[in-house]
This record gives sequence, structure tokens and C-alpha cells, in this order.
Amino acid sequence: MPGGLLTDLYELNMAASYLRRSMTGQATFSLFVRRLPPGRGFLIAAGLADCLQFLEDFSFTPDDLGYLHHTPGYGEDTLRAFASLRFTGDVQAVPEGRVVFAGEPLLEVTAPIAEAQLAETVLLNHVTFQTAVAAKAARCVLAAGGAQLVDFSFRRTQGIDAGLAVARASAIAGFTATSNVAAARRYGLAAAGTMAHSFIEAFGDEEAAFIAFAEDFPGAITFLVDTYDTGHGVRNAIEATRRLRLPGPVGVRLDSGDLAALARVARAMLDEAGLADARIFASGGLDEYAIAALAAAGAPIDAYGVGTKMGVSADAPYLDSAYKLAAYDGRPVMKLSAGKASPPGAKQVYRGPDGDVLALREEPPPPGHQPLLVPVMRKGRRVGAQEPLAVAQQRCRADLAWLPPAARALRNPVPVPVRLSDRLTILQDQVTRDLRRRAGVPDSPEGR
Amino acid sequence: MPGGLLTDLYELNMAASYLRRSMTGQATFSLFVRRLPPGRGFLIAAGLADCLQFLEDFSFTPDDLGYLHHTPGYGEDTLRAFASLRFTGDVQAVPEGRVVFAGEPLLEVTAPIAEAQLAETVLLNHVTFQTAVAAKAARCVLAAGGAQLVDFSFRRTQGIDAGLAVARASAIAGFTATSNVAAARRYGLAAAGTMAHSFIEAFGDEEAAFIAFAEDFPGAITFLVDTYDTGHGVRNAIEATRRLRLPGPVGVRLDSGDLAALARVARAMLDEAGLADARIFASGGLDEYAIAALAAAGAPIDAYGVGTKMGVSADAPYLDSAYKLAAYDGRPVMKLSAGKASPPGAKQVYRGPDGDVLALREEPPPPGHQPLLVPVMRKGRRVGAQEPLAVAQQRCRADLAWLPPAARALRNPVPVPVRLSDRLTILQDQVTRDLRRRAGVPDSPEGR
Repeated sequence: MPGGLLTDLYELNMAASYLRRSMTGQATFSLFVRRLPPGRGFLIAAGLADCLQFLEDFSFTPDDLGYLHHTPGYGEDTLRAFASLRFTGDVQAVPEGRVVFAGEPLLEVTAPIAEAQLAETVLLNHVTFQTAVAAKAARCVLAAGGAQLVDFSFRRTQGIDAGLAVARASAIAGFTATSNVAAARRYGLAAAGTMAHSFIEAFGDEEAAFIAFAEDFPGAITFLVDTYDTGHGVRNAIEATRRLRLPGPVGVRLDSGDLAALARVARAMLDEAGLADARIFASGGLDEYAIAALAAAGAPIDAYGVGTKMGVSADAPYLDSAYKLAAYDGRPVMKLSAGKASPPGAKQVYRGPDGDVLALREEPPPPGHQPLLVPVMRKGRRVGAQEPLAVAQQRCRADLAWLPPAARALRNPVPVPVRLSDRLTILQDQVTRDLRRRAGVPDSPEGR
Repeated sequence: MPGGLLTDLYELNMAASYLRRSMTGQATFSLFVRRLPPGRGFLIAAGLADCLQFLEDFSFTPDDLGYLHHTPGYGEDTLRAFASLRFTGDVQAVPEGRVVFAGEPLLEVTAPIAEAQLAETVLLNHVTFQTAVAAKAARCVLAAGGAQLVDFSFRRTQGIDAGLAVARASAIAGFTATSNVAAARRYGLAAAGTMAHSFIEAFGDEEAAFIAFAEDFPGAITFLVDTYDTGHGVRNAIEATRRLRLPGPVGVRLDSGDLAALARVARAMLDEAGLADARIFASGGLDEYAIAALAAAGAPIDAYGVGTKMGVSADAPYLDSAYKLAAYDGRPVMKLSAGKASPPGAKQVYRGPDGDVLALREEPPPPGHQPLLVPVMRKGRRVGAQEPLAVAQQRCRADLAWLPPAARALRNPVPVPVRLSDRLTILQDQVTRDLRRRAGVPDSPEGR
């Protein structure tokens, strides 16, 4: 989708005005999350791949221009300018999979202002959603200890492309498979799945259904055992395994009831039947809190299916993200709106042993600090080839291992501190004073 | 997108097994919401248009089949069966825009079981998400009294197609415009939007920015007045309006701070300047609770921009929806899983003066009751042409007007009661007893 209309109307209005007035100065927009949602100690950067694709493909089709001519009613000059518009700018970004905190730019776009402005809506959309979900999924990974996690969210994500994005974001965060076949194909993920209750109901008899399914998929079968009664279901699974002399380790899936208690019963039954290598799989309304409770109870669960609550990031379904003009035509800018001001200028984030430093991009790193933002696009083209997902996964594993206990805590987490560099603090104070003076607004700390 | 892979792997496994075993009996699956989320007194049916499109287009492409051959490793017989699979079934559904409650089927599919099973994931996805958002949007409409509402959610919806779906669902619920240009084009909605803070910052001087924008868009301009200081912003808007002798009623948009207080100040300033027809537009983190508070405070606000919290249905980002086998091959079925049992058989919902009745489809309506589900697809083809959005909007307006005060309450709402018909109650008890006896499970109320 070339995407010229995938935007808010005001972006088109502003772009039209800029183009008409030959305001072609370079603008730097900074995309960041103002505040972490309650209950989050960190975020996981995600969504960059979709952003780069969007920017590379950006254009208006003749159909788009026809619509813009008739309905909002843009003039011929504007439509001609739109027709030749492409994204020709530079992008710096935090690579996918990295841990990030509030106030830190996830992405900075520098481009002629009309181009940078038109990208706002889609860039915010991809980064906000995918970063929120990757963080939720990472919390599930931390809660699960060593147990495996499978993405089961597709049926209740907020739309179809959300399902694809969730499968990918949760894979970055450490999920090992997804039930979503389209996502598995698109992103090269492992697809996982067994049977639903309806399968057993269609057969009527649970054992008959198990035997039929095992005959059809003898390789690696997981029996769903709670359709009528979990204890009876486990017994039927053992019976089917014995009767068919199934080769590989079988599994049982618990999808309702007291999962910890049922897992213990199932484990004992399977062990007693000589199926010590059988795996127990749990699902049903799980999130990081439920997983942590099961792990804390010592429930013998080998893998978790995690669906809806991860897939919509149920307790934090959005982030307070912003895409703010930080500089225009060589001049640092900011707004003063109550509670919404943010520091001016193109930025860099330096990560060090005592926390992160938000600095001006031109500043050198403080000793012992590493930059988080790297160039990902120059003059509208990607820097380097598209990154394999495994690289982002490895990055996330490393950053989660680095994350201090206070920030990774499930409840009342404390994020790693982010301080402003001295130069950025001075610049922010200076721009604030200048703006207040020019606007005739009295000095007050309210806008900070 | 033909959509054969837009599904969970287990659906494909089950379909493969059914096809291999020539299990081609007709299955009826019922899609419903088990429980309303906390804080919801009703839902608004939405998502049906996308469901019908999916079912009509359903097929596997040669690429899909190539993937299924190599990765999950289905055999040649299964792939041949998949290759010729289309959706050939019947669908009954509650039309979009109608008020619905927990336990009521929003959609029932009757088709050969493999076809009906393969549609589960996408049907659940569309209906769950769009119904949740339409309900959230309808609550905003109720809270706003007569004020207009504009969808501002696109930048923070959970993906791009979510943004399109939200624009449409909120239009069904009564929103009058959207900022989302792609959605406005696709669904024939009014697109709305003005300028962002970045526009004013790029000019540096607020009045200069206002004058430039008004020159470029003199018809119907809304000035964003809170970039530096709202009072000064309103003064600059008045100045620009005077200097350019703008023809139409102008507007000012408040996007931060104490919106009620600022709206009063702005109203007084505009009135004093002889701009009594100027409109005041408010935005910034709004939802039905904030809108109701502003309305209760008598804030002189003419229109609200409602974004993220509506677009992700922030306080209820998913519904506890299910797609359950209700009958197979002429036999009513159900599962007994703890807390997840649902009544068997193909159903109808009858709406009457004392509430709704969930009944068997073959039952006649109780006196004075009307059916909610209507045939929408026969033998894989739509019944009638695609419905104009205005029909769903009209239906929603009528149902919201009908909704009793207890159900429409913003806080602690009480849904309209839904009772089971006597025949459905008797059938449910009988099927439960039969299943327990056959599975050897003792009778207990736990599974009900």
C-alpha cells in the first residue's frame, strides 16, 4: 500500500501549506513515549521494520490524488506537488528488541518538513502498538522463567494486521511459536497448534476423537483434555497414547479450571502411566500475572499459550506516545502546552552503568556510555539490508538479561533513570524562555 | 486477501482431519460474548461486513498450499482438498449497529464442519474488536449529549487496518467525522482536521502561522490555540479572523489543560470579539467519562475529538468472545469445561418489552417479540447487496434511543436481562446429562 492517504487530514493540510509556501526546510521530528503506563518498568522497541517499509514505499497513487481533488478539494498545484512527493529523509532509530524508557526517542526523522509531517500518523501507529505489545510479551517471558510461550492471540487482536504484528513482536520478546499461520509464514516463525473442543464435540466421544487425531498427526500430538472433565480427559489421552503406541512425547493441554491443581493431577497420572516425557501445556486467559502465580505455585507446566491479554496489551493497550517537531531549519523548537512540553533539538540516548542520558545528538557520549539510536535510513533508502528477526530476538534477550530487578518487577516496577544532559537542559531552558518572551507569556514552571 | 492462512494452526489440523475422514456433516457454530466487560451495559454489533467479505473470498492460493506442504507438512490428499475448499455455508447474524448483550449470538455459521471451523479465527477477530469499539464509541455519543464527535484515533490504534475499522465502527455508533483520510475515502465518511502544534512551531510566530493557514484554507478553519498559551492563542485566532475577514464561522481547538475552564474563557473572548458563531473544539485524552464531566460542568464545547481511548476501547480492549460448536450433523452439542459451557443448538434472539429471550432457532417468537438474527449469507453468497453504512447508523440511533437508562449508564450499568427460553433450558439440561453420563462424569452444577 503506497500509503499517501494513510494519515490524518491535518497532516495533508499542513503539508499542502508547507509546499505552497516553499517551506522546504529540514525538520527533525522525535518519536517517544511521554510516560510509561502504570505497571510498566520498561518498553521493548518494536515496529521499526514496518516504519521503514512505509517510508520507502510512500507515495500518492493517481486514485489517491483523484480523491483529494474531489473531497477535501485541494488545488491543482498542491496535487502536482503531492504527486511527486517521496520520502527523501534520514531516520535514526533504536533497533527493534532493545529495552527503552519514557522520554527516549525511539525514532527521529529528519526530512523536508512536508515529508516528515505526512509520516507522523503511520510511524506513531506502528511504534506505539508494537512497542506496547513487545513489552507486554517480554513481561510474560520474564514471568515464565524457563517455560516456553506460544502466541495464541490472533482471534482477539484488534484486527488482522494486528495479529500479524503481535506474532512478530512477541517473537522478538522471546515467544517460541505462534498459532497464527499467516504470521508464521510471513516472518518465518514456528507455527503451533493442536485441536479445539469442537473437534471432540464433533466426534461426541472424547477417546474416539483423540485416537482419530493421533492417527492423522502421529508426530507430535497434544491432547486437549478439558472438554468434559480434565481427569477423564487425561485418562483418555493416556489410553490413546498406549493404544496407538505413539512414538514422540505427547502433550496434554489444560484450558480451564484451576490450572495449577489440574497440572499436578495430570503430571502424576502421566508419570504413573510411564509417560514422564509427556509435556503439560496450559492456556486460557493467561497473562504475566497468571503465569507468575502458576510458576510460584510450582505448577508442573512446560509451556503456556498466551492469547488475548498479551495480544492487546490488555492492562496498557496504548502508550502515551508523541511525534514532536524538535528542530526546523536549523532552529530547535518545542511547545509549551500544559503537561506536554518536551526538550528541543535532535537527540541521542546514551546508556551507561548508572542509567540513561538523553542528550543532543551532536554531543559526544559520556564516558562508558553507548548510543541507542543508530542510522537506519539515509536519503529515503534503508541503511543496509532488512535485519533478520533473530538479530532483534538476540538483542532483546541481552537487554532483558541486563535489566535491573527493580525495572523487571511485575508489580510496582521502577524504570531505569533517564537524566537530561547538561547541554540539553540548558538548551531547553533557553528555548522555553525565548518562546515565552516572544509569545508574551509570563515565566512559570507549568509548561515544563 | 483470500485468507486461507489467516487462521490458527489448529483450525487447519482439524479441517485436515475432518476432510480426510469424510466428516462433511453440517456444523452450526455460534459466535457470542460470554460476559460483558466491567463497565459495559450493552454492546453494538459490528464487524459483519468484514466477515462476509472474508467468507466470500475464502480460498487457499497456490502459494498458501506450497507453504502448507513444506512447513506443517500436510499430505497431498489434504492439500488437494484444501485447494478446492470454498465457504459454501449459511450465515445468520445480528445486523451491524444493533444493541446486543452477553450470551446472544452475534453470528451463526452453518456449513460443512471443515469450512465452518476454518473461519473461526477471522470471524472472532472482526466481530470481537469492532463490537468492542462500536460500544465504546456509542458510550461517547451518549455522554456527549448533542455535541459532535470526531474520530482522532488513527495514530494509536493497534495497527493500520484497526484504524480503518475504528473509523467505520465509530461512524456506525454516531461519530460524524474522522481524521483518517484512508477510512474517509474507503467508507465515504467526512474527513476532518486542522493543524498540529508543529505547524505553529515551524513558523515560530503563532499569529503568522494562523494567518498563513487561514490564507491557504479560508473556508472552514479551526485554530489550534494551546501551543504556547491558550489565552494568547485565542487572541491570535481572533486577530487572524479579523485581519483576513474570514467568511465562515471559525473554530478554536483546545488540546491540553483544564478544558472546561479554557472553553469558558475562549467562549467569552470569542463572544466579546463578535464571533458568537465561532465553534469550540476540545481534544486530548478524551473518553466517555471525560466528555460526561465536561458536559456536566456546562463547558461550552461544540465538538469533541476522541482518539486513543476510544480507538483501542482502552478500559475494555477485548471481549470474552467465543465461537462454539452448537450442533453437528443434526445433533446439539456443547462442552462442559468449567465456567465455559454454553447452551447447545442453533439459536435465535427475540427482543421483547421485558428483555431478550435466547431461544432455539426453530422456536416461534414469544408474543410481542422480534428476532435479532437475520439471514445474511446462503450457500456462500450474500443475501442481498452490501448494506450502506447509513442503514447501520440509523439502526444504532434507534437502538440507543430504545436502550433503558440502567443499561446506558456510564458507571455501574445494568444490562437488559436475557433469559433462556423453556425449550432451550430443557435441551441444555438434557445434553448436559447425556454428556456427563457418556463421559462418566458425576452430575454437578460446576459445568453450567
